[in-house]
Amino acid sequence: MTGPRYTKLVESLPATVPFVGPETQERARRRSFAARLGANENIFGPSPHTIEAMAKTARDIWMYGDPENHDLRYALAAHHNVSPQNIVVGEGIDGLLGYLARMLISPGDPVVTSDGAYPTFNFHVAGYGGAIHKVAYKGDHEDPDALIAKAQQTKAKMIYLANPDNPMGSWHGEKTIATMVANVPDGTLLVLDEAYLELAPDGNAPAIDTTDPRLIRMRTFSKGYGMAGARIGYAIGEESLIKSFDKIRNHFGVSRISQAGALAALGDQPYLADLRAKVADARHGLAQIAADNGLTPLPSAANFVTMDCGRDGDFARAVLKELISHDIFVRMPFVAPHDRCIRVSCGRPADLATFADVLPKALAAAKG
Amino acid sequence: MTGPRYTKLVESLPATVPFVGPETQERARRRSFAARLGANENIFGPSPHTIEAMAKTARDIWMYGDPENHDLRYALAAHHNVSPQNIVVGEGIDGLLGYLARMLISPGDPVVTSDGAYPTFNFHVAGYGGAIHKVAYKGDHEDPDALIAKAQQTKAKMIYLANPDNPMGSWHGEKTIATMVANVPDGTLLVLDEAYLELAPDGNAPAIDTTDPRLIRMRTFSKGYGMAGARIGYAIGEESLIKSFDKIRNHFGVSRISQAGALAALGDQPYLADLRAKVADARHGLAQIAADNGLTPLPSAANFVTMDCGRDGDFARAVLKELISHDIFVRMPFVAPHDRCIRVSCGRPADLATFADVLPKALAAAKG
Repeated sequence: MTGPRYTKLVESLPATVPFVGPETQERARRRSFAARLGANENIFGPSPHTIEAMAKTARDIWMYGDPENHDLRYALAAHHNVSPQNIVVGEGIDGLLGYLARMLISPGDPVVTSDGAYPTFNFHVAGYGGAIHKVAYKGDHEDPDALIAKAQQTKAKMIYLANPDNPMGSWHGEKTIATMVANVPDGTLLVLDEAYLELAPDGNAPAIDTTDPRLIRMRTFSKGYGMAGARIGYAIGEESLIKSFDKIRNHFGVSRISQAGALAALGDQPYLADLRAKVADARHGLAQIAADNGLTPLPSAANFVTMDCGRDGDFARAVLKELISHDIFVRMPFVAPHDRCIRVSCGRPADLATFADVLPKALAAAKG
Repeated sequence: MTGPRYTKLVESLPATVPFVGPETQERARRRSFAARLGANENIFGPSPHTIEAMAKTARDIWMYGDPENHDLRYALAAHHNVSPQNIVVGEGIDGLLGYLARMLISPGDPVVTSDGAYPTFNFHVAGYGGAIHKVAYKGDHEDPDALIAKAQQTKAKMIYLANPDNPMGSWHGEKTIATMVANVPDGTLLVLDEAYLELAPDGNAPAIDTTDPRLIRMRTFSKGYGMAGARIGYAIGEESLIKSFDKIRNHFGVSRISQAGALAALGDQPYLADLRAKVADARHGLAQIAADNGLTPLPSAANFVTMDCGRDGDFARAVLKELISHDIFVRMPFVAPHDRCIRVSCGRPADLATFADVLPKALAAAKG
């Protein structure tokens, strides 16, 4: 018996996983992590109102969610002072990036990103056969000028930029971003991933111009709002672009519980403000721990601190391995020269204390 | 400024919605439905253990769900007596059908389904440019022989069959399905959608042979387990086919709450048995109401009863319109000759009483 006939494209793809989850590691280790600081999750958790809204919706889960995500889209539109027709809600930014790649990318189509930027974007682009052109970071920052130049040169259909950036935590001010947007070539779409924006200092997001068809902005409830497991994010963009998602999206794809939770989370801005303060404290705490151990903490506008271990990638990988063997779940940048660093997510004081306790041992073992 | 350059395929697609949700209708009507009997949701709701598991997981939602869906896959494997490598969990059957279409369909590739069968399957196939070949139902049943013959003739990459069928509620016994599977041409994949199987009488599912690469079976927690809003389903198939989903799926796409709920739901089989009895009672009740009003209820193995209104599609559409204007959310088959029917989902005694109260008025108005 002969199996199914895959498309040539799918046949050529590796069976890959952009990230190995901490649960997978725990199963392999046969031991739980003592601190979960590797996936930039929001350990402080969602607001009590959000938890309550989700728990309350559990009994209504027999109903499909609203495929239009109407109430949430309208609330988001009011929040951002745009039209509901400028917003599409989807299964996290990951899900929306997948839809976007499908909308724009045929085999061979050029796409520009930074070498070392978000691998899940690349996963989706490669999954539709796109040709990924990478430009180097400029130091620890993504390089808007180089991205634009490469897009012009390759006639790219998309440019990816995250602000704040993951995995480096660096960021650009709103003027730099606005200038970059102004320079996007016609026919190119800038995918501005603002997953961490709610946690960044003010002044890093240009005003939202929903008439510009060259820009789409990705936001999520996974980070600032503490709902990573709920798989809900949204994109803001020009109306015809947003409407195009309706051609291909899984219309009933967003959980009813996630819709209810996101609506409650958006409505609890005081909690978000409090959380921003907690995350800022944790960034300071992590930076201090790094410095105390001879590492160089990079400035961060996100809910993690990337720490320069001061040697090469092999050394940082050894540090990472030791941290994991001491039950600390952390990750690190994949490519040089950023792989000289480890990346540690913000946590509660107890999580930081655990990390502070383990880090010197991990460094000693890695050096030894 | 020029907008993004879509693929030719996406450019050619209509901005479509396979189903208009009841909430959309309620907003347009500016009035809530009194009975929600249109989407084959499980109004009896999920088991208390399922609700409890989901509510409890709400506070953990800051964590991404396990991208391997490990615990659920292992529980499902034990439940079905197959290997975990034969199971992929995804964002409902809709999500899995989308992945499957992406894996197999390039523009122009032939696919076979029944005229009037599940439109979301067609949505996904068309979304990848597939050429959909439709065969007629044989009476109110999908026609396995005709589907196989058409697949042979067109060299189809996929055949779609739902057992039990939606929207007619008809079904085939396990011997008929097993014979059909045996006749699937090499290189063709039979997509056996068993969304309603948990609600059907026993004897309608052939034994699971996970060595056959020509068959994939789709299951869901939306219907029997009452979790439509959670977006979680799974597919059972031959190992290399299942593994191929890892090439393209949104690895973190399933909500952590949905994973926890599904695991609890699967573990509460006594609740499912009780629910099957309730659904069977509701089928009898709906059939009686239909008969009392001069309609012909079709035999059903699912959680709905399709009722032959005895005239043409225009008449049934008029009945549907009247039911909706009397605050009953129902749907009906899209194509002739099935559009002589309306389709009413099983509900609680109070839902059925509301329907029984309104149906004579709706029929009178439609006739008048």
